[in-house]
Amino acid sequence: MRIVLPAGTTETARIEGISAAGAAPTLLAHTPSADVEILEYGRPTGAPVTPVSPTGCPTPAAVTRAVREVVGFEVTVVDAGLAKPTAAPTVDVGAEPGADIRDPIAVPDADAIYDRAYTLGTTFPDSKLVIGETIPGGTTTALGVLTALGESVGVSSSLPDNPLERKRAVVEEALAASGLEAGDCESAPIEAIRAVGDPVQATVFGLLAGALETGTEITLGGGTQMVAIAAALRHAGIEASLTIATTVFVAEKRDGELEAVCDRLDCELRVTDPGFDRRDHVSMARYCAGEAKEGVAMGGALSLVGDEEMDTVRDRFEAICTRLGIDGDDSSGDLTSPTPTDDHGGSLPQEEDSGP
Amino acid sequence: MRIVLPAGTTETARIEGISAAGAAPTLLAHTPSADVEILEYGRPTGAPVTPVSPTGCPTPAAVTRAVREVVGFEVTVVDAGLAKPTAAPTVDVGAEPGADIRDPIAVPDADAIYDRAYTLGTTFPDSKLVIGETIPGGTTTALGVLTALGESVGVSSSLPDNPLERKRAVVEEALAASGLEAGDCESAPIEAIRAVGDPVQATVFGLLAGALETGTEITLGGGTQMVAIAAALRHAGIEASLTIATTVFVAEKRDGELEAVCDRLDCELRVTDPGFDRRDHVSMARYCAGEAKEGVAMGGALSLVGDEEMDTVRDRFEAICTRLGIDGDDSSGDLTSPTPTDDHGGSLPQEEDSGP
Repeated sequence: MRIVLPAGTTETARIEGISAAGAAPTLLAHTPSADVEILEYGRPTGAPVTPVSPTGCPTPAAVTRAVREVVGFEVTVVDAGLAKPTAAPTVDVGAEPGADIRDPIAVPDADAIYDRAYTLGTTFPDSKLVIGETIPGGTTTALGVLTALGESVGVSSSLPDNPLERKRAVVEEALAASGLEAGDCESAPIEAIRAVGDPVQATVFGLLAGALETGTEITLGGGTQMVAIAAALRHAGIEASLTIATTVFVAEKRDGELEAVCDRLDCELRVTDPGFDRRDHVSMARYCAGEAKEGVAMGGALSLVGDEEMDTVRDRFEAICTRLGIDGDDSSGDLTSPTPTDDHGGSLPQEEDSGP
Repeated sequence: MRIVLPAGTTETARIEGISAAGAAPTLLAHTPSADVEILEYGRPTGAPVTPVSPTGCPTPAAVTRAVREVVGFEVTVVDAGLAKPTAAPTVDVGAEPGADIRDPIAVPDADAIYDRAYTLGTTFPDSKLVIGETIPGGTTTALGVLTALGESVGVSSSLPDNPLERKRAVVEEALAASGLEAGDCESAPIEAIRAVGDPVQATVFGLLAGALETGTEITLGGGTQMVAIAAALRHAGIEASLTIATTVFVAEKRDGELEAVCDRLDCELRVTDPGFDRRDHVSMARYCAGEAKEGVAMGGALSLVGDEEMDTVRDRFEAICTRLGIDGDDSSGDLTSPTPTDDHGGSLPQEEDSGP
């Protein structure tokens, strides 16, 4: 089994109140680079940050890595617009970091990225793939694309209190800057991504379409960000069967909305519960409290775990948390380098956090 | 266990009689990109060539992949000057393809590549690493560096009849073009690589020095090309212990010379015999006849195989040969895309082969 993980960045993450950009833009830019190192090597090796929130909630990359140490899947990371170098090996699809979606064009070369990712998607030898993503700010760009497509659905957040109204206001501004109204990109998903999306979306969408073309069975590992990709696929007129695998943390918070939209998009929804409530560990408690929730293919990875292996995954997750500098028994933690971000780079105790 | 594999190219491979450059320069340029795809995915997925010689001898990448399918080591490919894209994920150290060593400067940015590779070498979480290489033309650049360092030693070849005199003539010309004589780069290994080496050498050397600095135990997987790196290390005044792991195909052909030079460089030499003489298979017969011999970390990978697993490695190798289009029972073969190259991209029936 292989997990393909496009990793990138968008200036959208720096918008005040959406993520922690005002607090630590540099750390934010490094988060996806650190995420893929955690997935590849078990800890950040080149990136100068460790994506753990001040409350002791590590990036979902730590969960995905824990699953990898138990299940042993292969990983192919795709550079889908990283802003900072990473020591993890990546496949290049020529993507640059995305612009702020409030600019007229968010992803100038969206079709070229899509095309290259499509070609890459046709080449994998695997009969089944999980495709994930890591991009801070990604739930806001997901809302942008969904809105441009005319799909009325909310998005998730790595914050316990989802700043959804704030995101809607940003998306409204973004559409206006692109001369668009909600629904104007119906049946034109790449145009939606180009206007108000991000380079990771263009990459995931291309990989998905290419892999489906060659008969590969695909699971999109993620929550509302993957709903945006599924919507893009349907708006492109592609009817192939598709599964979205996410965590109970996302699904419960969306209160049935996720099931409804997956049903509408003709996607199977798989929801996995890693049983973090069975342990007395600060990081697991934070996930149960609604922090981080999903990202870095976490839901997709967990869907590969048999019931009898989940306890071992929790063991590995504890070991990885220790490696990342989290003291599991003490909720104050001893954190090496907190990186507060909205989207699965950890989360913030409050939206307007003014310092790391 | 992790194998780190710098992959790159040098214009030196295009010199007539050194490799098959006159016959198929385009295929040659794609060979390392195909090699790393074979290692990562089990077959070329993006590269438009399958490195198999006209006689049915596949690239050593097929052997290394066979070991991987049995032993399960991790792989980190480093882009050390690839000329063509690859669908395998790579870490970037900013290397460009190397120039012909008969130009005044073969690797203009040798120190910058070394520095970046050194940093990368310090970051791996593993306590032991195998470092390999894939670069067509690499035995000629190895002879160049060894000569510039003043180390009197021959080099191997993937050809049954090693065109060593031809290589010596090229190296003589290369040194003259750089204003150097044999031994002029004693204690200045990066200067030797810059003048008459290749970008993969700069990368392997940097990775090696960085990893040794952090206490990692290193095995260099390869033959005479790795002797050049070991010599570079000693000429840099680094005394850490070091192992070179190669195959019986290289070691027997060098008739004791390899042992002698390893002894002089204070390197342990490990020689593995994959027992290819025990099967009636065209590809294994070609290896036994002295084709290909080594490359793509083959010797290093084989050193990880327990005696009781070697038969399974041979099984996997047969399966991979079939996947690469080789009909094992028929020495005429049914080859999809023969790529004649000198250095472990397969080999040629004769040096001056005039067509693919």
